[in-house]
Amino acid sequence: MSFTSQEMSSDSLVEVSGRRFRHLKTVLKLKKGDELRLGMIGGRIGRGQIIDESQESCHIQFVLDRNPPVPLPVHLILALPRPKSLPRILHLATNMGVKEITFINTWRVEKPFWSSDYLDQASVEKACRLGLEQAVDTIMPKVNFERRFRPYVEDRLPQICARTCNYLAHPYSQALNQNQILAEIESHQKFCLALGPEGGFIPFEVECLRKAGFRPFSFSQRVLKLEAALPALLSQFTHS
Amino acid sequence: MSFTSQEMSSDSLVEVSGRRFRHLKTVLKLKKGDELRLGMIGGRIGRGQIIDESQESCHIQFVLDRNPPVPLPVHLILALPRPKSLPRILHLATNMGVKEITFINTWRVEKPFWSSDYLDQASVEKACRLGLEQAVDTIMPKVNFERRFRPYVEDRLPQICARTCNYLAHPYSQALNQNQILAEIESHQKFCLALGPEGGFIPFEVECLRKAGFRPFSFSQRVLKLEAALPALLSQFTHS
Repeated sequence: MSFTSQEMSSDSLVEVSGRRFRHLKTVLKLKKGDELRLGMIGGRIGRGQIIDESQESCHIQFVLDRNPPVPLPVHLILALPRPKSLPRILHLATNMGVKEITFINTWRVEKPFWSSDYLDQASVEKACRLGLEQAVDTIMPKVNFERRFRPYVEDRLPQICARTCNYLAHPYSQALNQNQILAEIESHQKFCLALGPEGGFIPFEVECLRKAGFRPFSFSQRVLKLEAALPALLSQFTHS
Repeated sequence: MSFTSQEMSSDSLVEVSGRRFRHLKTVLKLKKGDELRLGMIGGRIGRGQIIDESQESCHIQFVLDRNPPVPLPVHLILALPRPKSLPRILHLATNMGVKEITFINTWRVEKPFWSSDYLDQASVEKACRLGLEQAVDTIMPKVNFERRFRPYVEDRLPQICARTCNYLAHPYSQALNQNQILAEIESHQKFCLALGPEGGFIPFEVECLRKAGFRPFSFSQRVLKLEAALPALLSQFTHS
């Protein structure tokens, strides 16, 4: 559970109401005296104890004594998914520790997707914040939207990914070399990981990304939904 | 895309309409002459070509010449999630190749979850079928619901998991030993993988599962949502 610096302005006491109070009571089933982990958005994490409660709110006495979990060293580059999926994807990526996500246009991304309300800053922030809260993380990711494929991939991406290991998930290409990735993680490399839309990147797009320095790999014998592929892939880039 | 044996009764031609036709046109953006992968529920997979189309349907000429993808050697044992998540969880697990899923009751599973319509056979089958279709897989998973924790975990689970490697995802326990899992996969072991509800198993439940032969492990520094944890974990049990 996480709170803003305003909510945590008193240095050891925070009031919880609304959605988070209901989560405490109905999902985590905590009561007076129980402990939980919490954090301050943009700051440190620690532990708290519920010291009193009413029907609608409670007070938590807290100590913030640790840094938030280590970020995942991955810049995600995703074809913009259908709007309804966007909050789920943001939630998943943030939950798993991604700190930079760039949504791009591709041939199979439908035009109307780009005018959805789900791309609004408030909606994006809400989804990211829920993902952080779940992870007891406090560092918000940077989320970018790039509406034009070629200017981004041809002109800017080569610089963005000049110092990272760059992978492109693409069905039926070479299998992911897990030992190589492990070695790259061990030597503290950072990664750019590109994933296509449902139906995949078209060959021209694969070629552009390859020229920008991305190595195509296939990950699974199966065609996975983005909601399955994303956590499955990200877990390969996690230092255990 | 997959079809029932009735739909594929002609030995080389199938008609596509409704949801799957719309998916072909609007998501995959296929037209007459284009090819796609397909399969028969319970049977083989192969390729098809769209040989004619109208506004509402098309015909695909097909050959089923290969076996479906290899199943994941994992029997999933999951605390029953909140009903709204159940179809998503079934979809994810089926998409990734799980062929047996047992939902169990735990202390933190709310009673009303067990009377939800989402547990009905039709709803379960629909979610699984969508997951299979996505993966171009054809073998439906077996889905069990166990409403009583102790009779299942104490009396029956020890036999069920007597010949498998059994893991229990539990925050703050020992980290998952990926080399050990890789070795177990290499030697064709099968797995039982138990995951708790939001908020986790209570200590008594962990103890029961441990007695039944399950080794607790922690997987991530982060608290992951089930929708993120499940694909991330399952990908560790996949032969690459």
